[in-house]
Amino acid sequence: MRCRLPTLILLLQGALLAMFIVFVVYDEHADAAAQSNTTKPMDNRLYSVFPLFKDIHAMLFVGLGLLLAFMKLYGFSAMAFNFLVGNFGIQWALLVQGFFYHYWDGKIHLGMENVLNAEFASVVVLISAGAVLGKTSPVQLLLMGILEIPLFVVNEWLLTTYLKVVDVSGTIAIHVFACYFGLGVTQILYRPHLKSGHPKEITTSMTDLLSLLGTFFLWIYWPSFNAVLARPGDAQHRAVLNTFIALSSCTMTTFALSSLMNKKGKLNLVHVQNATLAGGVAVGAAADMMITPAGAFGLGCLGAMVCVFGFQYLTPFLSQKLHLQDQCGIHNLHGLPGIVGTVGSIVAILCSSEAIYGSSLYEIFPDRAAEHDIPAITSTVVAETERSPTDQALYQAAGFGVTFAISLVGGYVTGLLLKMPFLGQPPDEFCFDDEPYFKVSESQKVTRYPGVDENGEAGLPLKDI
Amino acid sequence: MRCRLPTLILLLQGALLAMFIVFVVYDEHADAAAQSNTTKPMDNRLYSVFPLFKDIHAMLFVGLGLLLAFMKLYGFSAMAFNFLVGNFGIQWALLVQGFFYHYWDGKIHLGMENVLNAEFASVVVLISAGAVLGKTSPVQLLLMGILEIPLFVVNEWLLTTYLKVVDVSGTIAIHVFACYFGLGVTQILYRPHLKSGHPKEITTSMTDLLSLLGTFFLWIYWPSFNAVLARPGDAQHRAVLNTFIALSSCTMTTFALSSLMNKKGKLNLVHVQNATLAGGVAVGAAADMMITPAGAFGLGCLGAMVCVFGFQYLTPFLSQKLHLQDQCGIHNLHGLPGIVGTVGSIVAILCSSEAIYGSSLYEIFPDRAAEHDIPAITSTVVAETERSPTDQALYQAAGFGVTFAISLVGGYVTGLLLKMPFLGQPPDEFCFDDEPYFKVSESQKVTRYPGVDENGEAGLPLKDI
Amino acid sequence: MRCRLPTLILLLQGALLAMFIVFVVYDEHADAAAQSNTTKPMDNRLYSVFPLFKDIHAMLFVGLGLLLAFMKLYGFSAMAFNFLVGNFGIQWALLVQGFFYHYWDGKIHLGMENVLNAEFASVVVLISAGAVLGKTSPVQLLLMGILEIPLFVVNEWLLTTYLKVVDVSGTIAIHVFACYFGLGVTQILYRPHLKSGHPKEITTSMTDLLSLLGTFFLWIYWPSFNAVLARPGDAQHRAVLNTFIALSSCTMTTFALSSLMNKKGKLNLVHVQNATLAGGVAVGAAADMMITPAGAFGLGCLGAMVCVFGFQYLTPFLSQKLHLQDQCGIHNLHGLPGIVGTVGSIVAILCSSEAIYGSSLYEIFPDRAAEHDIPAITSTVVAETERSPTDQALYQAAGFGVTFAISLVGGYVTGLLLKMPFLGQPPDEFCFDDEPYFKVSESQKVTRYPGVDENGEAGLPLKDI
Repeated sequence: MRCRLPTLILLLQGALLAMFIVFVVYDEHADAAAQSNTTKPMDNRLYSVFPLFKDIHAMLFVGLGLLLAFMKLYGFSAMAFNFLVGNFGIQWALLVQGFFYHYWDGKIHLGMENVLNAEFASVVVLISAGAVLGKTSPVQLLLMGILEIPLFVVNEWLLTTYLKVVDVSGTIAIHVFACYFGLGVTQILYRPHLKSGHPKEITTSMTDLLSLLGTFFLWIYWPSFNAVLARPGDAQHRAVLNTFIALSSCTMTTFALSSLMNKKGKLNLVHVQNATLAGGVAVGAAADMMITPAGAFGLGCLGAMVCVFGFQYLTPFLSQKLHLQDQCGIHNLHGLPGIVGTVGSIVAILCSSEAIYGSSLYEIFPDRAAEHDIPAITSTVVAETERSPTDQALYQAAGFGVTFAISLVGGYVTGLLLKMPFLGQPPDEFCFDDEPYFKVSESQKVTRYPGVDENGEAGLPLKDI
Repeated sequence: MRCRLPTLILLLQGALLAMFIVFVVYDEHADAAAQSNTTKPMDNRLYSVFPLFKDIHAMLFVGLGLLLAFMKLYGFSAMAFNFLVGNFGIQWALLVQGFFYHYWDGKIHLGMENVLNAEFASVVVLISAGAVLGKTSPVQLLLMGILEIPLFVVNEWLLTTYLKVVDVSGTIAIHVFACYFGLGVTQILYRPHLKSGHPKEITTSMTDLLSLLGTFFLWIYWPSFNAVLARPGDAQHRAVLNTFIALSSCTMTTFALSSLMNKKGKLNLVHVQNATLAGGVAVGAAADMMITPAGAFGLGCLGAMVCVFGFQYLTPFLSQKLHLQDQCGIHNLHGLPGIVGTVGSIVAILCSSEAIYGSSLYEIFPDRAAEHDIPAITSTVVAETERSPTDQALYQAAGFGVTFAISLVGGYVTGLLLKMPFLGQPPDEFCFDDEPYFKVSESQKVTRYPGVDENGEAGLPLKDI
Repeated sequence: MRCRLPTLILLLQGALLAMFIVFVVYDEHADAAAQSNTTKPMDNRLYSVFPLFKDIHAMLFVGLGLLLAFMKLYGFSAMAFNFLVGNFGIQWALLVQGFFYHYWDGKIHLGMENVLNAEFASVVVLISAGAVLGKTSPVQLLLMGILEIPLFVVNEWLLTTYLKVVDVSGTIAIHVFACYFGLGVTQILYRPHLKSGHPKEITTSMTDLLSLLGTFFLWIYWPSFNAVLARPGDAQHRAVLNTFIALSSCTMTTFALSSLMNKKGKLNLVHVQNATLAGGVAVGAAADMMITPAGAFGLGCLGAMVCVFGFQYLTPFLSQKLHLQDQCGIHNLHGLPGIVGTVGSIVAILCSSEAIYGSSLYEIFPDRAAEHDIPAITSTVVAETERSPTDQALYQAAGFGVTFAISLVGGYVTGLLLKMPFLGQPPDEFCFDDEPYFKVSESQKVTRYPGVDENGEAGLPLKDI
């Protein structure tokens, strides 16, 4: 640890700092010299981005951090590595996305909008990391971030520029990508001795409660997440409203199904912590469309259904049959609801018409009217012809397919690289334990490993695997 | 449980979905087809509602959720059922309030403003539920929500439309209503064996700390709660400012009184968790009036006084004499400060004049000038005559009386219905315990029930009641 | 306790209420009578202040409260006294700052902007209190607030009015001041018996986790803190962007250095909890300047370096050699990064020119162009001559020196006053323990003091100091 982690981080920071020095300048909203007498301060893009930016922040570090901190012995690592990898992901994405989207005159032009987009890229890494929570070293997680961010940016670029997929909140580009990338990694990092659980994989009432608190933070700010990139005005209004309705119906449905799944009717806290969020993923791709309030309600219910079903039946099945040890169940919260969301967007597109949308139709689906003078991303591959709803629906399906393939293959390759021996992958008995990574005081060890002889070497109390 | 809870929730969700399909459409701020070339996106109502909407959300689920999670063995239920019932309340209120206020052309017109109002309705149920925390099943709580929401809407409609009570933040309509409804319910659900406490009614240092954290979230966002429905501009500014001052003075006073109440001068954490919020209720009805900063300061002090006094003397008295087992002390945090707030609004109205308010007087008290062309809710019952301050003060008192009567009777009736045998009311020994509702792992049981033989059937460790 | 704390608080509240009655009125943004037909409600200053005001609130009570609650036996006191003293500080600062800045026609004119500035003053007291956490009674802390607030206001007034120091987020005026004031106090309150630690100075996994959660809240809202007083438009945009970049690079660097410091490469949670925030202090004074993104990145790295270095080497050294028992390490989080920030601002000023800033130069550095018609605070001492970059740099250094001297001497004097016998300073064996201040239930005592005979008098379990 002492060599690897500091070396890797300092190398990364040095490289990033060098890149910042050479390439990064303020964009026209942050550059003092770019202001003129006619610039109105309140028109600065800061004011539309900042309130939502803070919400995404709270989701990433407080919400997701707490949600992941459910294990008694792995709370420090879960929260702190989420913080570390999240920050690295943002910095790295600022550069990668900068070269893709904000690079001209030899410089990357940086403003708060870039940071917002970089946070979305970073989320992808943090979701994928959920599949291998407790089984990877921070060095491995950082390496995963190094590889995943550029792949995510390339995939997103294909989707928006070539396929022109309509996906306002990244159901496909973020959730589906992150899920199958993470599953690819975890399948390669399969640990046969952990297939019947691990003695350190335990929760306490307090960690479970904090994890539920994390769910609440994610739930509260999810409408911001889904709406932040929607067109201002009615489209953003719909994105917030539809997301809220979907989350709410999804929450109710989760309680019903979780109770149904247990023979005594008892609720499973894992379902409440996860499936109550599935509606946000399921409604995501169509969040700004005219899906009607009832449509959002229905998508929320479907999201909860597939998620609870996934935790109950699919995760054990995948673990046994496909060697897929999906630690946090990201397939249930991001993969399955992502499929629901893709199908939802296809149905919504097939039902869309000028009668329902008015002239806004061509703002939400710019490729439906190539001749309209809308500032759409120009493309040289897709011919400038008008797309029918069926065309767009097929492109949505294609977008899902491309994302699925790129992310899974990317995950496999990354998983193979993460198996390199010098990356500090913890041995089985050190999984789900802060001990290898954090100084834990003697007084804490007494509570952490009750019944263990204090003479036992730190971090080695449980060898019965 | 396995039959009742899922059946009820799925029935409710099915009915709500059907109603959404038949009745609910987007309002003009969310409907794409309602936008024209002259619509300015930034004028969309989303932008005035959304920032405050998130705050109310955080209060409901994070703030109140944590505040209720103070019991060692009932944390999951407290937080999760608050989440469940809160969500149901919002969905149900969207429909009930929709039919009252947003129904025309055969449709309920839905936008974020409706959701905001529905959250206020939902708060009412969650406050009332505090009186029976730990002693009711989720089925009972949902049934309570089914009944309380329409009654709340009717009462609020009487207050705003007929009595034209001035109550910007719902001190009367929300806090007083919720309190006496909840007290009515708990009086009917009286449990004689619990009058000298319950062995499971224990806290830990951590749950007490989390509950205090919940208080902080409520405290931080309370100014948003009180101001969200105030008129934009100076009135909203005053609502925020007065609420902040009242909360701050109330916090200081709470520490002084709590220390005074103990013979060794030790602080009672229950007081700090609750009475520091009483100022927000006490200042509520008059929050947007010209009560002066000193007036807000004084109302805050009074709120803390009645709340600490209530916890120290009144709650034990009511419990013994009136069989009122008010689990969270909602009478101290919502009832008594609600009375202070009502009286405060009466005094503020009696002191109001055009000299103090300028022409704004008729915007804050629209019925003081019936001939002014202000978009007030028209009423056919109250004659279109000018009200004097004394008239308005009497209407305030009448509003309090009507609310008190309706809520208490409603609470009694609801309590009787909740006693129906098939609603899963927990027997005395299962009160204040997650065991009947949540899967609790064996490793957690060891900490939860120390000294209890593991052979004892789950959930039955404590029989010495 | 029973006499002292309530008496002091009630006296303070009485005096404050009297002052409010006599002196405080609403300002023109909150006063109904000050509105005219041409007032646009949305131009009310509430709307620029309120969103950031809530963030500062969340930092003060949730963020800092949790960060301080890291000790197993002192969590209630840490969070509750932070809440108490923070509120008193705000109320007191409203008056002191009111007389300095908002007093005319015999009245203090109060609006939300005043409250925002009062919160900044209150932060100063809460930072200083970190140095003596667990070793002072609430009576002492309140007295410290009574004395520190006016001194802070005077020092800030000297800096802004006479020296015209450029310090947008208070790196000098807030962090440096608070640090050396607190160090002065703790040096006087030196406890020789505690130099090799205290048996009650222990953490648990959960308190450490909550403390880390507090760090996240501070981290998330720190850009708001640094930007709230910046000029709207590009300057505010830069303040947010630079602060975010500095925090992010500082977080990465902290992980690297913390691991390097340990011979097994293990991370120290204290570093993660504190040093990840040092970037916010280090970038503060220059946050709105054209320091380039790389400059912000570098300042963040430097902040983390000095902070980790301080915890590892300087704090033990100061404790042994200078009798400086800095309980929370405020010197590492506020003092050393404050020095980095001051030097950073000097370098940024020396590099500033009209070529880089355009005409904005004279808005960020008003004294660089005395003839420009900018609404700068007029001064009779500094001659109305144009300042060169070197002049301004020297004034920055002078500002640091003045602040250092005033705060340290102020801290010494305050420390001497806090030693007065009737202020309830806890004896050594009661340090770091909630017992003297809070009612702790018997069931909690079992967990709090394991192995201690229940017959032992409450609060006296550990006598082996």
